[in-house]
Amino acid sequence: MSSRLHRVAVMGLGLIGGSLMHAIRRGGLEVVGYDVDLQTVAAASSAGFPVSPTDAAAVHGADLVVLAMPLPQVPDALASLSPHLRAGTIITDVGTLKQPVLDAARQLVPQARFVGGHPLAGTEESGWGATDPMLFRDAPWTLCIEPETDLEAWLSVAELVCDLGAKPVPTTAGEQDTAVARVIGLPHVLAEALALIGLDGGPLGLSLAAGSYTSGSRVARTRPDLVATWCDGNPALVTALDEAIDRLSAARASLASDGSVFSLAEAGHRARMNWERRSFEPVELRVDRDELCAHGRRGGWITAVLRDDDGVRLLGMQPL
Amino acid sequence: MSSRLHRVAVMGLGLIGGSLMHAIRRGGLEVVGYDVDLQTVAAASSAGFPVSPTDAAAVHGADLVVLAMPLPQVPDALASLSPHLRAGTIITDVGTLKQPVLDAARQLVPQARFVGGHPLAGTEESGWGATDPMLFRDAPWTLCIEPETDLEAWLSVAELVCDLGAKPVPTTAGEQDTAVARVIGLPHVLAEALALIGLDGGPLGLSLAAGSYTSGSRVARTRPDLVATWCDGNPALVTALDEAIDRLSAARASLASDGSVFSLAEAGHRARMNWERRSFEPVELRVDRDELCAHGRRGGWITAVLRDDDGVRLLGMQPL
Repeated sequence: MSSRLHRVAVMGLGLIGGSLMHAIRRGGLEVVGYDVDLQTVAAASSAGFPVSPTDAAAVHGADLVVLAMPLPQVPDALASLSPHLRAGTIITDVGTLKQPVLDAARQLVPQARFVGGHPLAGTEESGWGATDPMLFRDAPWTLCIEPETDLEAWLSVAELVCDLGAKPVPTTAGEQDTAVARVIGLPHVLAEALALIGLDGGPLGLSLAAGSYTSGSRVARTRPDLVATWCDGNPALVTALDEAIDRLSAARASLASDGSVFSLAEAGHRARMNWERRSFEPVELRVDRDELCAHGRRGGWITAVLRDDDGVRLLGMQPL
Repeated sequence: MSSRLHRVAVMGLGLIGGSLMHAIRRGGLEVVGYDVDLQTVAAASSAGFPVSPTDAAAVHGADLVVLAMPLPQVPDALASLSPHLRAGTIITDVGTLKQPVLDAARQLVPQARFVGGHPLAGTEESGWGATDPMLFRDAPWTLCIEPETDLEAWLSVAELVCDLGAKPVPTTAGEQDTAVARVIGLPHVLAEALALIGLDGGPLGLSLAAGSYTSGSRVARTRPDLVATWCDGNPALVTALDEAIDRLSAARASLASDGSVFSLAEAGHRARMNWERRSFEPVELRVDRDELCAHGRRGGWITAVLRDDDGVRLLGMQPL
C-alpha cells in the first residue's frame, strides 16, 4: 500500500470491520482489532489476527482509528476511547448516516482529526464469519469534508480507501445523508412495504410471487435493527417518502381514471436505463474543499492520491 | 408427455410462445406456430419449427390453441380465428391479467372451451431469441376455473402444464388478477417510483446507489409497454396502491415523530422470512370446481393428473 499510515486500529469486527482488517493487513499495514463481543474476538484471534483486550490498548500508537461498531454504540465507544487518543489521531467510521457520527465526534473527540466515511459495500450477511477482503473492490465510499476537516487527514484516508480498491467520494455529512435517503433508506422502506402487502393478500398471491416480488422485497431480509440504523433520524428520508407517496398517488389516480400506469412506467424505465448507461472520464483535481465537494456532487470519485516532491496530485473520474 | 392432446397451435412466438413451442415439441407433441411478425416467423422456421402462413392454417386440426401474443392483440386475434375453430377446441392464453381475456373469449369464441392461463415465468428478456424450453420448470402457472369452464378441458391443459415441469394453480380470473396486483403490478410500480426518485436526487446519490437501489429498481428495466399490460385496467392494483400509500404514510409519520421506521422494518422482515420459510405437504384432490379453487386460494398447486380406467386422480401440494 502507498498509504502513509503505519498502524490502524479497527474497532468492531463485524462484516465491515472484519473485512477491513483482512484487506488492510493484506496491503501490508499493521492492523489491530477490538470487539466487545468475546466470541468475535476469539474468532478473529484464531484466524491469526492481532486483537487487543481493551479499546485503550487497541488505539495505542495508532495513526488511524476506524469505528466499525453499529451506529448506536458509537457515542459510548468514543467517550471510552477519548482519554487514550493522542491529539491529531485520525478517526474515521463506516456508518450509513454521517451526521450523527459527526455530531458525536465533534463533541467527544475534539482533539482528533475526524473524517466520516461510508463504504457502500454491505451484503445481507453480517458478522465476522462473513468477512471478505475483496468486499470493498469497486465500492463507492463517501469521505466527508466539513469546514473544519483537516485535508491532510482526509487525503490519508482517501489513499487507504483507494488502496483497498474502493472509490472515495468527497462530500459532506449533510449531502451524503440526503443522498442515501433516496438510494438506501427508501429502497429498504419500499421493500418492507412490498413484503407486507404481498403477505396481506393471502397465500394465493404468495404462491404466485415471482421475480419482481422476490427482487423488490429482497432487502427486507436484512435485520430490521440494521435497517433502522440506516433510516432513523434522517430528515431527508421524510422528504424521499413524501416524494414516493406523491408518485404512487399520481399513478393510483391515473390507473383509477384513464386505467393506465404507463406514464410512470415510462419515466421510471428511462431513469433506470439512464443510470445504467452513465459513462465517465478521467479528471485531475485540486486539493480544495469546495472543488472536491463539487466533484462528489457531480457524481465523481477519486481514483488515486499521488505524492511526490512537489506535493499531492489527485486523480478522479467524473460523469461525461 | 402423458397429455391426451395431439396437436397444439401456438399463436405468437415471443419469449413465452417460443419457449412453449420448444418445450411442447421436446415433449413429443405435434406443435405448429404462427406470428404476425415475419422476422419472428423466419427465425422460428430456420430453427426447424413448423410455422403456418396464416392463423387459420395454424389452428386447423389443433386440439389446443395457445394465445401467446401481447394482451392488447388478443381480441383481434380471437375475432380473426373464430371462424376457423371447431366447436370444442380448447383455447388457453399466457397473459398476466385474466379477466380481460376471459371477457374477450366469452364474446368472441363462445364455441370453444376456454381455460385462461398465466405462467409466472417471464424474464426481462423478450422475443424469439430469448426462448428457452426450460423456462417453465417449477414456475407457478395459474389456470382459471370459471362457472362455465369445462373441467375436462381444464384437466387437459393442467396435464400439459405439469408435463412442462410447471405448477398449475387452480383459481378464477378475478382471484388471480387480485393476487397478481400485489405480487406483480405493485412491485413494478414501486420499482419505477424508486428509479425515478433516485434520479431526482441528482448524481451524488446515483453514484452511491448500491445493492438495495439496484435490486429495488431492477424490474424498471422491463419495457414500459409490457409493464402497462400487466397493470392497466386492474382494479385490484388501485387497492394495492392504496395499501402501499397507507403503509408509507404511516412509516413517514413515525419517522417524522419518534424518528424511527423500525416498526415497519420489523413487520416487513417477518413477512419476507415467513414467505421464504413456507413448507408444503402432498394432498390428493377431487375434480371439483370449488375444491380446486379453494386449493389454489390456500396456496396449493397441482403436481400430477393421473388417468386410469377408474377416471382421473389429481395430486397436489398444499401449505402446511
